Amino acid sequence: MAGQARVLGALTLDSGEVLPELTVAYETYGTLNEDRSNAILVCHALTMDQYAASTHPITGKPGWWLNLIGPGKPIDLDRYFVICPNVLGSCLGTTGPTSPAPDGKPWGMRFPVITIADMVRAQAKLLDALGIEQLHAVVGGSMGGMQVLSWAALYPERVRNAAAIATAARHSAQNIAFHEVGRQAIMADPHWAGGDYYEGTPPTSGLAVARMAAHITYLSEAGLTEKFGRRLQDRDAKSFGFDADFQIESYLRHQGVSFTDRFDANSYLYITRAMDYFDLAEAHGGKLAAAYEGTSTRFCVVSFDTDWLYPTSESREIVHALMAAGAEVSFVELSSPFGHDAFLLNTPGMDQIVAGFLG
Amino acid sequence: MAGQARVLGALTLDSGEVLPELTVAYETYGTLNEDRSNAILVCHALTMDQYAASTHPITGKPGWWLNLIGPGKPIDLDRYFVICPNVLGSCLGTTGPTSPAPDGKPWGMRFPVITIADMVRAQAKLLDALGIEQLHAVVGGSMGGMQVLSWAALYPERVRNAAAIATAARHSAQNIAFHEVGRQAIMADPHWAGGDYYEGTPPTSGLAVARMAAHITYLSEAGLTEKFGRRLQDRDAKSFGFDADFQIESYLRHQGVSFTDRFDANSYLYITRAMDYFDLAEAHGGKLAAAYEGTSTRFCVVSFDTDWLYPTSESREIVHALMAAGAEVSFVELSSPFGHDAFLLNTPGMDQIVAGFLG
Repeated sequence: MAGQARVLGALTLDSGEVLPELTVAYETYGTLNEDRSNAILVCHALTMDQYAASTHPITGKPGWWLNLIGPGKPIDLDRYFVICPNVLGSCLGTTGPTSPAPDGKPWGMRFPVITIADMVRAQAKLLDALGIEQLHAVVGGSMGGMQVLSWAALYPERVRNAAAIATAARHSAQNIAFHEVGRQAIMADPHWAGGDYYEGTPPTSGLAVARMAAHITYLSEAGLTEKFGRRLQDRDAKSFGFDADFQIESYLRHQGVSFTDRFDANSYLYITRAMDYFDLAEAHGGKLAAAYEGTSTRFCVVSFDTDWLYPTSESREIVHALMAAGAEVSFVELSSPFGHDAFLLNTPGMDQIVAGFLG
Repeated sequence: MAGQARVLGALTLDSGEVLPELTVAYETYGTLNEDRSNAILVCHALTMDQYAASTHPITGKPGWWLNLIGPGKPIDLDRYFVICPNVLGSCLGTTGPTSPAPDGKPWGMRFPVITIADMVRAQAKLLDALGIEQLHAVVGGSMGGMQVLSWAALYPERVRNAAAIATAARHSAQNIAFHEVGRQAIMADPHWAGGDYYEGTPPTSGLAVARMAAHITYLSEAGLTEKFGRRLQDRDAKSFGFDADFQIESYLRHQGVSFTDRFDANSYLYITRAMDYFDLAEAHGGKLAAAYEGTSTRFCVVSFDTDWLYPTSESREIVHALMAAGAEVSFVELSSPFGHDAFLLNTPGMDQIVAGFLG
């Protein structure tokens, strides 16, 4: 079933503002069983979307987590019913800055600033509408992992199992810094026009630069060296010019430009802001363990050894807090040369871990 | 003696092009002795300049290496005569894209692409003009260290001692990637206008974004966390907006904007390109040791444990190559929480090492 969306009424946000009408677009895979006990919520990362296991309507590319989701795969569609919603603030059908405000024009920068918890509350409203009281599991990587951690903190009784992959319980200063570079790149593009560009030319140059900067953080230095090194692009010698002499330049430019075909610049601003604001401990008196006291949710935390965006040390902090809260938690650091992106790739060990955890 | 410059005639570049007239601006500190044997060449980094130990004429800030250069300091002005030239391609008096081309208008992007070796050859011409045949030492950090390595490879008989600090013998894929983000940010700024902006508004927005992205790479994650963490800027609570809520955002924005007052965007393009092109081994049949065979130059290599721009592993490669070439080399990894920037700071141990090495 593709291209579904639900209109879910008003949503009160962490900022205190009220979003008058929330729509959540989502994809589902597999079949909900009779007692509605086999649902798994898959939460997506910053620039991902609901097309976790189906073809993206704009790019035509296959789902971004086909490694994990499918019949007989770790998130087994022969057994589980998977719901993947587009997050609040995004641009693939769920309410965000591209959506019409009450005056009928796109929200643009009039859209209220949102948080990861707001995204999760929007998803909870979707589950209410679908009649799903409790989830077999919530699973997600990167910003998806932040949603997983928030789900288990906000709705412990609704989450039997929570798998948080390549993520952190708060955004670090360095992560905020990279996001700020991206936002400033977008805002420096005159086509951004204060976010009011929907009837004109979008700020594709600024968004492409933002994507390029972020993309570097998704890869490890070792991975970049292995994949590109200092190899030249379609030439035998340096051009002594400013063309993309090196493969890494050509690759980054392509990543930047192709991103602008499928993503909205204002959505990028809002979602990066939500991630910067994310600090689960802060919302619990500075003590992360307090977010999970008395929980009966089972947790699985996975990190990757070359991920420098959300390094293993951040996962360890989550694990220590969960243990301090008396939660049942398993933790694995997987080895991969591909940095943060490893959570999207066919990283050895990840399939067995997710399959084993989901049972 | 401040504000000196020499007109040095034509310079043939690695690209094969000929720069018809080369001017090199430089500062000197201390006194040249009678047999002209006490000269130390100090080479500056990407966005630095000749004002290593004197006040910057635009910012009014003190010299960037006053920790090391001064009477009684490691680069002891009671004993040594220090020459610090502005590099080729820069914008503080040495020929670069802001300089007049033969038609009287600024070169802009008509300026030929340059290399680190071209910078060094320009400095050699300056030394010729100053009547300095041999240097007691060449010392530099970051891109300054690349010049040090090139000096010792190109003119071994002119360099008695070479200190290469926080540097590498080639630019990695990740380093090229960060530079490419900066260049694309500049070129995406409509004020850049293909580099032809000298009679109009310069591309300050793009240059500021480029500086912000680069600045993140100069600091360590631990240093950023220690210095800023997730602390808010002049407020008690998040604003739920896009102002600089976090100190790190405010700091980065300031770094970006203040940089544009003292640096030229086209110079940034050319100098980053020169760094990307830098690969000393490549110029010697892929074997770095071949660059130093039979050398009698003494080397000192210094790295910092939290520098992820030029990590210690890159310094080790230099040291291994020098040892393979039979060169005399000492190597120290210093501990600092401040990442790459440690070479500009009062990092414990650095003064003794430089003083001890220079003798």
